[in-house]
Amino acid sequence: MELPVYLDHAATTPLAPDALAAMLPYFTEWYGNASALYSLGQAERVAVENARQTVDDALYATPEEIIFTSGGTESNNMVARGLAEAHPDKRHLLTTPIEHHAVLEPLETLARQGYALEMLPVDAEGRVSPDDVARRLRPDTLLVSVMHANNDIGTVQPIGEIGAACRERGVWFHTDATQSFGKLPLDVRALNIDLLTLSAHKLYGPKGIGALYARRGIALARFQEGGGQERGRRAGTLNVPGIVGLGKATELSLADRDAEARRLTDLRDWFMERLLTIVPGARINGSRMQRLPNNIHFCLSGMDGEPLLLALDAAGICASAGSACSAGSTEPSHVLKAIGLDREVARGALRLTLGRATTPEALGYALITLADAARDLRGLSYAGAAR
Amino acid sequence: MELPVYLDHAATTPLAPDALAAMLPYFTEWYGNASALYSLGQAERVAVENARQTVDDALYATPEEIIFTSGGTESNNMVARGLAEAHPDKRHLLTTPIEHHAVLEPLETLARQGYALEMLPVDAEGRVSPDDVARRLRPDTLLVSVMHANNDIGTVQPIGEIGAACRERGVWFHTDATQSFGKLPLDVRALNIDLLTLSAHKLYGPKGIGALYARRGIALARFQEGGGQERGRRAGTLNVPGIVGLGKATELSLADRDAEARRLTDLRDWFMERLLTIVPGARINGSRMQRLPNNIHFCLSGMDGEPLLLALDAAGICASAGSACSAGSTEPSHVLKAIGLDREVARGALRLTLGRATTPEALGYALITLADAARDLRGLSYAGAAR
Repeated sequence: MELPVYLDHAATTPLAPDALAAMLPYFTEWYGNASALYSLGQAERVAVENARQTVDDALYATPEEIIFTSGGTESNNMVARGLAEAHPDKRHLLTTPIEHHAVLEPLETLARQGYALEMLPVDAEGRVSPDDVARRLRPDTLLVSVMHANNDIGTVQPIGEIGAACRERGVWFHTDATQSFGKLPLDVRALNIDLLTLSAHKLYGPKGIGALYARRGIALARFQEGGGQERGRRAGTLNVPGIVGLGKATELSLADRDAEARRLTDLRDWFMERLLTIVPGARINGSRMQRLPNNIHFCLSGMDGEPLLLALDAAGICASAGSACSAGSTEPSHVLKAIGLDREVARGALRLTLGRATTPEALGYALITLADAARDLRGLSYAGAAR
Repeated sequence: MELPVYLDHAATTPLAPDALAAMLPYFTEWYGNASALYSLGQAERVAVENARQTVDDALYATPEEIIFTSGGTESNNMVARGLAEAHPDKRHLLTTPIEHHAVLEPLETLARQGYALEMLPVDAEGRVSPDDVARRLRPDTLLVSVMHANNDIGTVQPIGEIGAACRERGVWFHTDATQSFGKLPLDVRALNIDLLTLSAHKLYGPKGIGALYARRGIALARFQEGGGQERGRRAGTLNVPGIVGLGKATELSLADRDAEARRLTDLRDWFMERLLTIVPGARINGSRMQRLPNNIHFCLSGMDGEPLLLALDAAGICASAGSACSAGSTEPSHVLKAIGLDREVARGALRLTLGRATTPEALGYALITLADAARDLRGLSYAGAAR
C-alpha cells in the first residue's frame, strides 16, 4: 500500500528500525530464559539489565527502581492496587478527571470499595493547580495521581510543583508519563516523583512492554504473582525482546529529544495557526503554551468528528477523534467534558498527533484535505481558500 | 557462538522462524492501533481476529471466549482474582500443591483474605484423583484449579474426569495448560474446561503474550482496567505482533502435534532407560505413562543439581534444576516436596525438556556428558560405561 500520512502517534507509533534490529537477535539466537543459570540465560540477563540502565538513566532513577511490565495500563493498575493493598490504612485518593482510563478505572474500583476518591478541578485548558493539590492533601492520602501530559488534548501539568507539594507532606505522587516520556525532560528526583508509568509503543518501541518507576522504599503489593522476577515485584517470564526494544527506543528518543521537540512544536504551531485561518469554526482545545510538542486537538463547530475522520482516511491520513482507547465510541471523551466543552462542540473533536516521520508537506496535505472535507460536509465555501 | 544443546523447552522455546516472519510486518508496515477507525487499524484488527480464530479452533472454543493477555502468569492471576471479585459469596478454593506459583500465589493471597484454600492430595507420581476432587466440592466452591501438565516433573492430570466432576456440580474448573497446549490434545468442550491458561513462548511463539480461555457466560472481574479492548475484559493496547506470533505458533504446533509428540516420547523414553542403566543412583521422577512427551526429570542420589547443571553448561547443554521460575534458588521445588521426595534426594533434581530441534545425537551427547559429570563429581567410576 501507499504509505499513509500517519498522524496518530499518541495512539501508537511505528517501531524504530534500530529498535527492531536490536530486538531480532533475542527472537532468534538469544531466546533463553533470563532467569536461567546457564550461559544462554546470562546473555539475556545482561541485555535486560542494560535496557533497565537506559530507562533509569533517562529518568535519573536507579536500576532497582524500574519494574518492567506489559505496558502503561498494567503499570497504572499496579500503582492503584499495589499501594492500596500494601497500605490499607490510607483511604484517600486524589486525581484529576482527565486522567487516562487506566488510571481512573482502578481508582474508581477502589472508590467502590469505600475509598474516598477526590477529583482535582481542572481549568478550561485542562490544567491542575498545585495549590489545589496542596490544599486537598490529608494525613490518610494514599496517592496523588496526576498525568504528566494528557493523551487527548496534550496539556502538560505542573508536575514539579505538584511533586514538591506531595513530598512536603510525605504523600506518594504518581504521574502517568505514557505520552511524555522521551518527549519532555523527566527527572524523577528533581520533580519529586515517587511512581511513574511509561510505555514503549508510544515511543517507537514495541507494543506489549512498558515500565513502572517506583522510588526505592515504597512498598507496593504485587499485581502479578507467581515468580521471583523483577526482584519479586512482577512475576512472569521476562519479555526479553520487548525489554530490549524499550531500551533501544528510549536511547534513540533521548538522543534527539530536544531537537525533535522543537521541530514538532514548530510544525504543530504552524498547523494550528493556519487551521484557525483556513477552516471556519475551528477552535483549538487544550493549552497553547503548556502542550505536548506533537499534539494538535481541535473542534470544528457544528460538525461530527467521525465523517471528518473517514474523509481523512479516504485521503490516506490517519487521525483520531480523541483518545484512541475509546475509538469506536461516539460519546465525547471524558477529557472534553471535564474541560467544559459543550457536548455539541465536543462531537466534532479531532486529534492529530505528530511524530518522527511527520513533514511540513504531510501537514499541508492534511490541512487542505481537512478544509476540503469540512467544506464538503458543511456544503459551505470556506473562507481564506484563495489566500 | 556454537549452537547450544537446548534442553530447557519447559522454561522457554526458540521463536519459530515462521512465527517471526508472520510478526515482522506488524512491527514495520502494519503498526497501527487495532482499535482505530482508519484503514491502518483495520488490517491489524483482522490479523488479531485471525489469530484469535486459530487459538479458539485449537481449543474447540469460540472467538469471544479467548482473551489475549501478557502471558500465562497474567492469565492465572486473572482467574483467581477475576472470579473472586465477581462472585464474592463463594469462598472455597480447591487446587493441588504442585501447581505453578502463578496459580498458587494468587490463591494464597485469597486465603490470607479469608478464603478456604484446600489442597488436593497428589500421589508419588504427582497425580490427582478425580474422586478426591468430587468428594471435596462444596456448594460454595468458587474454583477448582488443576494444571493439565506439570512444568517440573511433567505429570499429566486426568483433567477430563476432573472437568466432568466439576461440571456435574456446577463448579468452575480452570486448568493451567501452559505446558501442554500445542503438545497434547485439548478440547475444552469435551473436557468440560471452564477456564484455561496458555502462553506463547512455551510453544515457539514470542515472550510477553498468552491467552485465557473463559467459557461464555462466566463473569470474571477485570484484572487490568482502563480501556475497552478484548470486549471490555482486558484493557491495554493490543500487542498485535505478539498476538500474530501466538496465532502462527499455534498453527505450526497443531500441524505436527501428534507426530512430534510421538517423536519426543520415543526420544524421552530412550533417554530415561539409558540413564537408569548408565548412571548409578539415578531415579526418574513423575509418571512413566502420564507424562508430557518432552519431559525428563530425575535425581542422582547423593548429588546436588547445581554442579551437574554447571558441568552440562560447560559442555554447551542448557538444562534446569527443576522449575525455571525458581532458578537461582537452592531450595528443592515445592513440587518435589509434594510428591514426597526426601530433601536430600530432591537437591539432585535435574530437568531436561526436549523440543523441535532435539535430536537423538543431542540426547546421546547429553547422556554421556551427564554420566561423565556424575562420575567426576562423585569420584566414582560409573557402571555400564563399557556397554
